[in-house]
Amino acid sequence: MAEDKLTTRADDFSEWYNQLVLKADLADYAPVRGCMVVKPYGWALWENITAALDKEFKATGHVNAAFPMLIPMSFFEKEKEHVEGFAPELAVVTHGGGEKLEEPLVVRPTSETIIGYMYAKWIKSWRDLPVLINQWGSVLRWEMRTKLFLRTAEFYWQEGHTAHVSAEEAKDEMFRILDIYADFAINEAALPVIKGEKSDTERFAGAQITTSIEGMMQDKRALQSATSHYFGQNFSKAFEIQYVDQNNTLQFCETTSWGLSTRMIGAIIMTHGDDQGLVLPPRLAPIQAVIVPIFKTPEEKAKVMEVADRIFKELKAAGIRLKMDDRDNVSSGFKFNDWEMRGVPIRIEVGPKDVEKGSVALARRDKPGKEGKSFVPQTGLDSTVSGLLVEIQDSLLKRATEFRDANIHDPKDYDEMKKVLESGWAFSYWCESRECETKVKEDSKATTRNIPFNQPDVEGTCIVCGKPSKRKVYFARTY
Amino acid sequence: MAEDKLTTRADDFSEWYNQLVLKADLADYAPVRGCMVVKPYGWALWENITAALDKEFKATGHVNAAFPMLIPMSFFEKEKEHVEGFAPELAVVTHGGGEKLEEPLVVRPTSETIIGYMYAKWIKSWRDLPVLINQWGSVLRWEMRTKLFLRTAEFYWQEGHTAHVSAEEAKDEMFRILDIYADFAINEAALPVIKGEKSDTERFAGAQITTSIEGMMQDKRALQSATSHYFGQNFSKAFEIQYVDQNNTLQFCETTSWGLSTRMIGAIIMTHGDDQGLVLPPRLAPIQAVIVPIFKTPEEKAKVMEVADRIFKELKAAGIRLKMDDRDNVSSGFKFNDWEMRGVPIRIEVGPKDVEKGSVALARRDKPGKEGKSFVPQTGLDSTVSGLLVEIQDSLLKRATEFRDANIHDPKDYDEMKKVLESGWAFSYWCESRECETKVKEDSKATTRNIPFNQPDVEGTCIVCGKPSKRKVYFARTY
Repeated sequence: MAEDKLTTRADDFSEWYNQLVLKADLADYAPVRGCMVVKPYGWALWENITAALDKEFKATGHVNAAFPMLIPMSFFEKEKEHVEGFAPELAVVTHGGGEKLEEPLVVRPTSETIIGYMYAKWIKSWRDLPVLINQWGSVLRWEMRTKLFLRTAEFYWQEGHTAHVSAEEAKDEMFRILDIYADFAINEAALPVIKGEKSDTERFAGAQITTSIEGMMQDKRALQSATSHYFGQNFSKAFEIQYVDQNNTLQFCETTSWGLSTRMIGAIIMTHGDDQGLVLPPRLAPIQAVIVPIFKTPEEKAKVMEVADRIFKELKAAGIRLKMDDRDNVSSGFKFNDWEMRGVPIRIEVGPKDVEKGSVALARRDKPGKEGKSFVPQTGLDSTVSGLLVEIQDSLLKRATEFRDANIHDPKDYDEMKKVLESGWAFSYWCESRECETKVKEDSKATTRNIPFNQPDVEGTCIVCGKPSKRKVYFARTY
Repeated sequence: MAEDKLTTRADDFSEWYNQLVLKADLADYAPVRGCMVVKPYGWALWENITAALDKEFKATGHVNAAFPMLIPMSFFEKEKEHVEGFAPELAVVTHGGGEKLEEPLVVRPTSETIIGYMYAKWIKSWRDLPVLINQWGSVLRWEMRTKLFLRTAEFYWQEGHTAHVSAEEAKDEMFRILDIYADFAINEAALPVIKGEKSDTERFAGAQITTSIEGMMQDKRALQSATSHYFGQNFSKAFEIQYVDQNNTLQFCETTSWGLSTRMIGAIIMTHGDDQGLVLPPRLAPIQAVIVPIFKTPEEKAKVMEVADRIFKELKAAGIRLKMDDRDNVSSGFKFNDWEMRGVPIRIEVGPKDVEKGSVALARRDKPGKEGKSFVPQTGLDSTVSGLLVEIQDSLLKRATEFRDANIHDPKDYDEMKKVLESGWAFSYWCESRECETKVKEDSKATTRNIPFNQPDVEGTCIVCGKPSKRKVYFARTY
């Protein structure tokens, strides 16, 4: 596939994305409406994402468990907003073992209900709290418009569900996780996301507070990249999740949930990718460096492969995730394009002249062409490559941060806001009324993304209606 | 829960098992028929199992991917034996997004069909082969009689699916995986399983050869603990998985599949557990050692905790998976019972006298009472504990192997076989006819488990009908 030219981002960003996902071998369309197959290369990327997050969840006292994928339909009806939010998206199992079921079962779109049911059974006393459980798996939402990784019927994610003695502790948990998500996005995925609180209309169905991290993609649209919710006692009352406190009084728990999905892969593609294909942050890249030996004659091959093999061993021993591309049925040019399409951060070329000179050529994926190419000694290559991986990681974050900051505007009035929202975000005071939010959506197709926690010290006036306003919000178009 | 006495194995092995799963906090019954919740402690055990296997799969060139959980019903009808085998167990999604679906979708009971469909799309040339993909996830089979871990409607597993150019290569793959399963079972889980080929009646639906590992539980029943299948061209013809060979001729692939599930946890419980609860092999135990500080007065507490904390740090630094039980609302006796129920291999007691003497008490879970207790110096405790973990691991395997060998019989005739099958396995010549297999099942409730690859050099006569027989088979009762 890699030899076909990719549509450019400027020509058609959406089509560029769709082609890239397929050409970089990340995923494919499944024969079931709206579902995807995550191919090995895409799954290896997801495994690196899950490993980094799982480590942080465990370091903060969370444990993993597994709850059933099927949930009785009646469970959804126990929390009013929750069922209203999810009812249109449910896939329903009506038959099992050749017979019609007495009660239809829903393939989980999210697991608050079934986990709430089990927590009610498990939690008895304040000594049982907090319960801090996470689950890795997939969920199913019958989405109408789907796009690989960004919005698919079945998608892969983790969902954390916690129960606490107090609102304060539950909110702390919500923020703790939001910080984990933001730190992961920034430090591992090189995505300069913005943390904040969602508006009432954008909240999760059943939540009292929803917080999110939002990233700016290269088409300047916003992508909600993970969410962390505080439910108050909504679910604990619906499912009777109660505990006896230290005064022997029965109390309802305060609960949270939080999730990050394979959509994160979409964020990585749309933040870092270029017209040659995927660009992966080194810390998450399944392959951090590829060695391409270059030769024509058998004599050259023998000399080159000796060096290439030695380098491979050295870099492998240094813990670098490495691939040797010794295919004999494609040209070096094909290989270069192929690994560029797949976003491998560093290409190491070894040719006959390199063998003579004791050098290799390094090509950085984040800087195409001559600018990103350097010739370095074979001696000490492990530390050269390790250092360059760090430099690329930093450089990707810096570039994305500059791009983000250059495209967030502070329009002086509503007319200017309409203009900036055509290609960028607006960071403006808003009165937090649904009317003004709807007006912006109608006029500019932009929604409120989130209200960040760091706000200016002064109050202002709503950019839409002019009423007094306490907090600024990000307005942006999304997918 | 741990204070309630466990039913003994002798009284009621099945009830002992059911109680143990709940009391050891491994799993719970879900509110959906036949489904289970794997609780954090059980999931931590499963994570250790998956980590060990995943490492071996990757070391042998396999990669992970993810295929959808929903499969069009029509896919199942493409392979005749496969649909016959699985049709009675299917759960069917008939509605999605509020509407009736045009074609019903099946929640995957296994993924040969959908993966076959994708392989047909991906595989073009001999250069694309072999394809060696594994998937971690869950599947759903509408089972009538369920038992936690052993047989649940939804269960967790890995399923590998590979495609090859030749029958020889595909069979090699089947055996390679069977070896990985057996090595894992023996070396990590301390289960002395037996490798062999299944009879025609016991084969996987659609397979040409099914191989398995079989373990003997303490009630002397056999448990099939993993399977590896060779399909020949059954699935490649059903799904048109074809490639162009080096002579430019279109050929059908040879395929395999193989799986190991959460049933492995059932095998561990029933092989090693005792009347005090679970006994975990150290290599897989989520907690390898628990420290129980013992004190009465605040002065004692201060002295004891200083030593306990220091030991905790030292052992943690040595890579031992460790828990400090400093609960103040339960007695030491309660704690001892609790950690015995959960099968933690080593208990480390630190009391005021230990502090004075510079010693600690170690209690081995595999040897209850005084026999398993020793007093050792605090100095060098990390290597003492590490060494003891190895010793316990070896000891569990040895004990299970001796038990297995003592209960496999070589009956001299059919009457004796009927007798030994009441409480043990028979390893006997069998003519490989369905008639004799059925007769044994009717007479003794025993089935053929597998035909091992190492056979005696001489031929014999079928223990049922007396006809000449080339191979010996294991007969045993199962669950």
